[in-house]
Formats: sequence, structure tokens, C-alpha cells
Amino acid sequence: MRNAEIIAVGSELLTPSKIDTNSLYLTEQLNALGVEVRRKFIVGDDRARLTQTIHSALEQAEIVILTGGLGPTEDDLTRDAAAAALGRKLVFSEEIQADIEERFRRFQRQMAAINLRQAYLVEGAEPLPNPRGTAPGQWIELGGKIVMLLPGPPGELKPLFANECVPRLLRHLPPQVIRTRFYRVSGMGESDLDALIAPVYTKFTNPVTTILAGAGDIQVHLRAQAETAEKAEALLADLGPSMEQLLGDRIYSHNGESLEAVVGSKLRERGATLSVAESCTGGMLAERITSIAGSSDYFVGGFLLYSDRMKTALLGVDPALIAEHSSVSEEVARAMAEGARARTGSTYSISVTGEAGPKSATGAPPGTVFIGFAGPGAPPEARRVHLPGDRNRIRMLAAQTALDFLRRKLTS
Amino acid sequence: MRNAEIIAVGSELLTPSKIDTNSLYLTEQLNALGVEVRRKFIVGDDRARLTQTIHSALEQAEIVILTGGLGPTEDDLTRDAAAAALGRKLVFSEEIQADIEERFRRFQRQMAAINLRQAYLVEGAEPLPNPRGTAPGQWIELGGKIVMLLPGPPGELKPLFANECVPRLLRHLPPQVIRTRFYRVSGMGESDLDALIAPVYTKFTNPVTTILAGAGDIQVHLRAQAETAEKAEALLADLGPSMEQLLGDRIYSHNGESLEAVVGSKLRERGATLSVAESCTGGMLAERITSIAGSSDYFVGGFLLYSDRMKTALLGVDPALIAEHSSVSEEVARAMAEGARARTGSTYSISVTGEAGPKSATGAPPGTVFIGFAGPGAPPEARRVHLPGDRNRIRMLAAQTALDFLRRKLTS
Repeated sequence: MRNAEIIAVGSELLTPSKIDTNSLYLTEQLNALGVEVRRKFIVGDDRARLTQTIHSALEQAEIVILTGGLGPTEDDLTRDAAAAALGRKLVFSEEIQADIEERFRRFQRQMAAINLRQAYLVEGAEPLPNPRGTAPGQWIELGGKIVMLLPGPPGELKPLFANECVPRLLRHLPPQVIRTRFYRVSGMGESDLDALIAPVYTKFTNPVTTILAGAGDIQVHLRAQAETAEKAEALLADLGPSMEQLLGDRIYSHNGESLEAVVGSKLRERGATLSVAESCTGGMLAERITSIAGSSDYFVGGFLLYSDRMKTALLGVDPALIAEHSSVSEEVARAMAEGARARTGSTYSISVTGEAGPKSATGAPPGTVFIGFAGPGAPPEARRVHLPGDRNRIRMLAAQTALDFLRRKLTS
Repeated sequence: MRNAEIIAVGSELLTPSKIDTNSLYLTEQLNALGVEVRRKFIVGDDRARLTQTIHSALEQAEIVILTGGLGPTEDDLTRDAAAAALGRKLVFSEEIQADIEERFRRFQRQMAAINLRQAYLVEGAEPLPNPRGTAPGQWIELGGKIVMLLPGPPGELKPLFANECVPRLLRHLPPQVIRTRFYRVSGMGESDLDALIAPVYTKFTNPVTTILAGAGDIQVHLRAQAETAEKAEALLADLGPSMEQLLGDRIYSHNGESLEAVVGSKLRERGATLSVAESCTGGMLAERITSIAGSSDYFVGGFLLYSDRMKTALLGVDPALIAEHSSVSEEVARAMAEGARARTGSTYSISVTGEAGPKSATGAPPGTVFIGFAGPGAPPEARRVHLPGDRNRIRMLAAQTALDFLRRKLTS
């Protein structure tokens, strides 16, 4: 009993602005019990589609959870469709009728006759009390599988699942523990990374390895399941070290911290301060640095230089240097970092100058970016990268590359 | 050909923190074409489940769209599963191979051999060019139905769908004309806006009115459907003018242009230049301004001032002014705008100083923000706003408020 599928019911969940969030809560709860969610469905108020969906979920999954469609109206089809898919009848429950009538009395409201639709149970189902609403949940066991019908409103679903479903599930599940490792990696693309580590991780089915890629930022998750914490840790210890060795200093975080948070912690540890000089990133680098609460402890500020003239006027970059090498050059990147450091008095300074595209002002092809660095006790340095993508992606990758360059300087 | 089902592929979409947002975009696009989305599926990287899912979608829907799982790794199973579900073979395309190799050459990167997995097409599929990624989309027609395989990254999916899929779909859909009006609105919250315009728009079912809210930025869409363009325009003309009157100068764009694009056009029209002086927004304002290609025509650069000392050192703000009023004050906001304008020589300058939280450095409560403005022929001015939300939201709203303040100054 290790895998589940979730079916969210309701036409409103198929509009452009609505999302099913119940399944996120359920996934978290199920994962904590060692149950994996393997598929999710969102179905409108459509009897044929809903019945077919329940059928196909039951073909694959051991646990099938339906949310929504338990209300009193014609559109609420979950009870009907579940009965049809399971080949069972609906039976009227006088106990539930009494509960519903009592609830209306308590709130001094008139009960419309349609509310009695909610008193039908799939034959053999155990009703699950729902103190926050009129529709009870339903718990159905059949041939080693479990089907749950749960109300759609999150305020009803969550307490009902926690109080009624989790204890029942625990009776069916083998004792099981999950342990994870988590790496964030910078400085390589997704396919290069996969080519590097696939020969190792594909040998293991437990831990499971998942790779998630953002702009220049990749997350690698290892997840091990076992009966005890010791065994799960031992499984991670089989794969983790070889993964860490392959990735080396490309791993910037083992706990999910962002690159800007890691750089911030390193600056704080050293009691150091930072300034920036941004050209093509236009503020994106500083925006990331200052997204961290408390960043004013180490970030002093900096310069946005969106023209050659400003590089000279605000940072003192020699116009002759720009004329000779162009503003997109190692020389100018170094002079920018040096200028920002001198003018702000910061311990370190990092600069970005490049062509984000779509047009090029200097003749260098879009994606050509130089990162400069200045700090105490050594001459300023710079490195060149060529970044793929459109204007927005080049800017994001340039900010990421600059932060990673700084991280490496602060680590070495 | 009026109903669709969408299948999002990827195990990461089955974790507790991930949602499939591509289907929201696709739903919006499909609805605009008069196609209803009847069911959505989220399936992990699991060949059997994915194949069964494609089967069951094809049983019910006329249009089946798959997103994701087209990458180069072992986990990317969409091509395989689609071929299996359709009973077709996968065929290797030398043309796609050449495109992929060319792409890697262009970015001066080494191509890993696994990337050639992306050169397989479902037999009979038409490849859909994907300029932003290596995996082309695939368009498959069979027995009056349409199956599309699309890349998962939204930055690839959206242009590919708009440029390649919409024109092909239009050839299969009954003639129907849709006309839209589109307002982008700044300066009020979503619920205030809804309270203002709901009494008008709820009287109409055609046009349909949709309100989409971002941070401080609201989009109002009117969508009319009719058999001819004249009829659709006439329907819009019933509702549009009263909407425009209610919203007044809060509307900053009628064509979907972003606020930074609108401000950029106004600066360009005047042949004027702009600089910024950012404190709490930490680069976010300049980042938005420079996200527009060609913004170097009017944006010269500016200053990031993440401490009182930098406000004095880089902008010449009088320390006595800061001591008397604190750095989060009208006086300092004005001095910052004035200082940035003087030091850069720009026509206009805009400044932001405030408390983004969670802690306050000046005693002003988080959310207190001052926007300063300096331009020719009048003394600098400033306005105070109080912005709701957490650190990130306050920063986003502050950047939005600053851009909107500038727009109004450039309009008046």
C-alpha cells in the first residue's frame, strides 16, 4: 500500500485562474506516511469523464482519493460516479439524514430537500464525520484497495483527512521512514549535469533521484525509504558521497538555501561588506542580494551603469580603456569592480558588463558577459562567459554567474 | 472540435510544493478559441501510467495536449508513451538532429549524446520549431483528433503554443470571431477594483470579464464572441466605455504593454533620460526598467543606497537631513532624486526609500515607502505610501508605485 492517485472534482477547477490546492496538502500528508502520489486528475462536473477517471485510477493505484463534488446540487456527481465505477449501489442512510437535519436545526436554517442527496453512501462505505460541513466523507475498501470521497472546501477537507483518514491509513501501511538529501548546484546546464551523474544515480531505485532545473540553478533531490531511520540513512550513504564527489564545488547548498543566502552568510561570517556595479543585469544582481532579510548588514549598495558615459562619470572608468577594449571586456569589468569598491569603501565588489541582446551595442554577440571582482590584497580579476537564451534568460544567467563567482571567491 | 484535455508530465509536479501552471495558460488560450478544457492530468515520469493516461484522454477528448517530458534524459518519457498510446513508431529525424547540433554550436557548448533523444518524432508527427529550447514540439493528427506534445518550461511552451499551435488549431475550428479589450490598471487593490466595476460587468455574459491580479498590477480582460467581427466589436462597445470611465487614469495600458514599457515609450517620445536612486527596492525598479529591450536609449543608470552612509557618500544627501527626518522620509526621498539627477545629468530621476521589513531600521513600520521625483523646471517632490504584505511584496509594490508615479508625472 504505497501509492495513491488524487482526483479533484469540479468544473470551476478547469478555469484559467483556478488551481487545485487540496492535492498539495494531501501529497504532503501522504508523503509523510511513506505513500507516493503518482498521478493527479482534475475533472469537471461530467458523469462519463468522472466515472472513467475513477476506473483508470483504480487500475493503477492502491489508494484513490476524490475531493469535491459531494455537495447537494445536480452538479455534485462524485457519489454517483464512484458507485458506478465501483459497480456498487447508492444506499440512503437515515443516520446521516438525522445528522444533516440536526445541523440545520443548530444553525436555525431551513433545510432544502436537495440536501438529502448528501445522505447517500456508496454501498459498504464507512461515513467519515465532517463537523464543518453537511457532506460526510466516505471510506471504501475493496479488494485490497482504498477509495476515499472527501469534501472539496479545504477547511472541511484538512481536519477530516487528518482526524479520520490518517489513523485508518496507518492501519493499512507498513511502518516506513523517509530521509532526503538535497543539493543546489550552479555552473552547469541540466543536460551536462545529467550526463555527469546519471551513470551513478540510475543504478539506484532507492534512493530516488530527482533533478529540477531553473535558470542556471539546478536542484538534485535524493529520497530514500526504509522501515527505520537508520536504514534510510544507510541507503542515502550509499549514493550521497559519490554524487557529492562528482558535483564537487558546484554544490553551493545542502539544505535548500538560495545562492544569495549562501553568499550573504559567507559575507556575514567574515564581517565583510559588498558593493556591486551592474551594467547589463540592470539591478537584477542587487535585487537578488537584497531579497534576503537583513542583507543591509553586509550589502552597502552600488551603481547601475547603463551607458559608457555613466561608467566613467559614476565609477571613474577611464574613457580610453572603454575606447580601446569596448565596455564589454575584461578590462572594463575589472575597472568597474575596482571603481565600485573604491567609491563605496566595501570589502568586496562584483561587477557585470555584457550584451543581453537582442541588439549588440559593442559588436560582441548577445550572451557575451564579463564578471569582475575586486577585494583586498589582490589585483581585481574578471572572467568571461557566454550565456545562452533570450534577453531575460541572459540577464538571469549573468546574475547567477556573478553570485556564483563571488561564492567561489569567498570560499577559496 | 470544441473540447480538450491537458496532460502535464513530470514527477516534480507531484511534490507538495509544485503546481502545474502551464495548464492555466493553455486553458486561457483555448477558451479564447472557444475550446473548453474538460479534464487535466498530472502524471509522473512513469511509462505505464502515462501511456494509460494518454489512452483515456483520447477516449474522451478531441484535442489532447501534453506538456513536459520532452527533455533529453531517461526520465523524459512523453515521446515514448505517446507513440505507444497511439500505436505508432518513433522515427529519428536528421533535420531535428541538425537543428540541435546547430543550437549547441551557436552557444559554443558541447553536445552530450543523450540530446539526440530529442530528435525522435512520433511517426507522422509534424515538428513544431522551439527557438528557445532544444526539444521541438510535435503536432499529430489522427482520426479527427489532435495530439500535441509541448515542452514543459513556460518560457518555451508559451511562444510555441501561440506561434505554432494556435494557427493550426484555427484551421480545425468552426469560424468564430473573438474580440477583446484589455486594460492594465495600477494604483488600487483587486477587491477595491472589483467592488468598483462589478456592478457594471456582472450585467453582461458576453463579453466575459476576467480580472487577473499581480503585485499592484491588475489586468481586466473583456472577451466577446460572435459570428462576425462587427458583432463582436458591437458587444464590446456596449461594455467598454463604461468600464473605461470608471477606471479613468488608473488604466495605463490598453494593449497589454507593461508599465515599464509604457514609461519607456513616454521617455522616448520626449527624448528624455531617466536615472534612479533605490534604497529598499534594492535594484528591482531598475531591473524592471531595463527588462525592456532598447531601454539604454533613455535609461542612463543610477544608484543603490543600502545604508545612510551611501546616501551621503554616493548622492550627497546631507547627513543632518537624515539625522533630523530619518532616511525614510519625504525630505530624503527628494534629496535622493535630486542627487541622482545632478550626478547623472538625466532629465528625470526617481527615488525609493522605505522599510521593506521584516525589521525596521528607522522606527517607521514595514510598508512605509517614499517615492521621490526630480525633473526640470520644478522643485523635487515626494509622496508617501503604505504598502501591505511581506518583504517581497512590499518591494514589488514599491517598484510598481514608483513606476506609476513616474508615468503620471510624464503624462501630466
